[in-house]
Amino acid sequence: MKLAFIGLGVMGGPMAGHLAKAGHSVTVYNRSRDKVQAWAAQHTGTVADTPAAAAAAADIVFSCVGNDDDVREVTIGKHGAFQAMKRDAIFVDHTTASATVAQELNGAARALGLHFLDAPVSGGQSGAEQGILTVMVGGDEKPYSRAEPVLKQYARAVTLMGPSGAGQKTKMVNQICVAGVVQGLAEGLAFALHAGLDAKLVVDVISKGAATSWQMENRGKTMVDGKFDFGFAVNLMRKDLRIAMEEARINGAQLPASALIDQFYATVQRQGGGKLDTSSLIKLLVKP
Amino acid sequence: MKLAFIGLGVMGGPMAGHLAKAGHSVTVYNRSRDKVQAWAAQHTGTVADTPAAAAAAADIVFSCVGNDDDVREVTIGKHGAFQAMKRDAIFVDHTTASATVAQELNGAARALGLHFLDAPVSGGQSGAEQGILTVMVGGDEKPYSRAEPVLKQYARAVTLMGPSGAGQKTKMVNQICVAGVVQGLAEGLAFALHAGLDAKLVVDVISKGAATSWQMENRGKTMVDGKFDFGFAVNLMRKDLRIAMEEARINGAQLPASALIDQFYATVQRQGGGKLDTSSLIKLLVKP
Repeated sequence: MKLAFIGLGVMGGPMAGHLAKAGHSVTVYNRSRDKVQAWAAQHTGTVADTPAAAAAAADIVFSCVGNDDDVREVTIGKHGAFQAMKRDAIFVDHTTASATVAQELNGAARALGLHFLDAPVSGGQSGAEQGILTVMVGGDEKPYSRAEPVLKQYARAVTLMGPSGAGQKTKMVNQICVAGVVQGLAEGLAFALHAGLDAKLVVDVISKGAATSWQMENRGKTMVDGKFDFGFAVNLMRKDLRIAMEEARINGAQLPASALIDQFYATVQRQGGGKLDTSSLIKLLVKP
Repeated sequence: MKLAFIGLGVMGGPMAGHLAKAGHSVTVYNRSRDKVQAWAAQHTGTVADTPAAAAAAADIVFSCVGNDDDVREVTIGKHGAFQAMKRDAIFVDHTTASATVAQELNGAARALGLHFLDAPVSGGQSGAEQGILTVMVGGDEKPYSRAEPVLKQYARAVTLMGPSGAGQKTKMVNQICVAGVVQGLAEGLAFALHAGLDAKLVVDVISKGAATSWQMENRGKTMVDGKFDFGFAVNLMRKDLRIAMEEARINGAQLPASALIDQFYATVQRQGGGKLDTSSLIKLLVKP
């Protein structure tokens, strides 16, 4: 199948790589040239100068870029993909973005005889590298069923969550849950340290029961050690929580703890920790 | 071995039952007589009229009662166990109580030539019934190693966490973590419902990744259904969070989200939900 991939960052790079390795004809585009050259040095594929040029011949165009404005730029921008795409081709956006931009671009795609799927992922950089991401998709069933087998090249689980925007909304639920888990864990472990407990032994003992979580099992001990270099950064988490809080204004949901935790992440940022991973919330609760 | 068990509630009743079934000579006491009679009808054991009478001949005395004052009453109260216990006997308290009362009673026990272990449990009523509790112990190593094999009759994991009070402090960490997890899950699932998502499908999808938790896997779908009859009650959670917040005043730890969530639990109580389970936090975030 002829594919295009726009955005070769820490997520998009390995994802495009899996498509190339699976034998698809892949044309890639990235805003900064160095990432394109690094990718092309390791993979079989064609390099394009604009999103439009990358997308022109493709059956499916993928993107994984930074935020709402970036997604707009690579789709409906001056050199965006939509103007060049073949009729009935599919645009799959893996960016974690707003449901609003997903619905907007779904409308624009439909008007042009194209399809748009919002398809944010979870699983992080290592999930992308190992090809075991979880993909949460919003959009129509027909283009979904055409795209699904291709998505499986880098995903362990691909699920159609509902109409346009439902993928993004599901990712928001994920991030809201993560925020609560991490803050609870940070308060618990900081309490353990203040109480003079062996905090790693505490993690061993309580991770057997009702308090346990992926975060406790995978980040509990590194939080005790003050190590915060495990991927998903505070800067990105704040973007995701902002998107969720804006969506909550639209749908009427309340996010009292999430809003508070977002403010704690703002403190981590202000103290220079924007690139630390999300478990760095504990830094605000222990002696520096 | 000669054992005594004080407090035959939903936890203590099955725990004492496991000891009797294991062939120990068990003498039981409970404040209200009906629970003693129900227990004695199903198990082999002796019934005593006071904690002191139950404890007189025992090598190890266990208790599982309500709160700090109840623990004081059954140990150093008028008919308490301490006055009657044999020299070098051990008192193991399974109540979730303050570290302060544990340290106070540890001092009193030592003055009388006795041993005191604070040993709160996790695993709930079903864990007690199945004999698979987690026991977090604070106290001295010598009495701990004598008590440990007996505790294994109803526990899957028994761990000495540190000196007197360390068991209670570990349980506090557990409850702090649970509070954060449950509130995050409640906000996430309420958001999913407001967003028009299939919230149970969302649970299926995101419970594969970094947002997952015991609470999500075991309570996520029942929360969506508005079912809150799965054991550990809001009233008890508020007691445990109060103990944790008081201990944090002593050790200097901050619990900003836990304190907020405690207030949400207070709202659930005020609305008549004190006996609902802890996942009922979602009630505050969805339409009634």
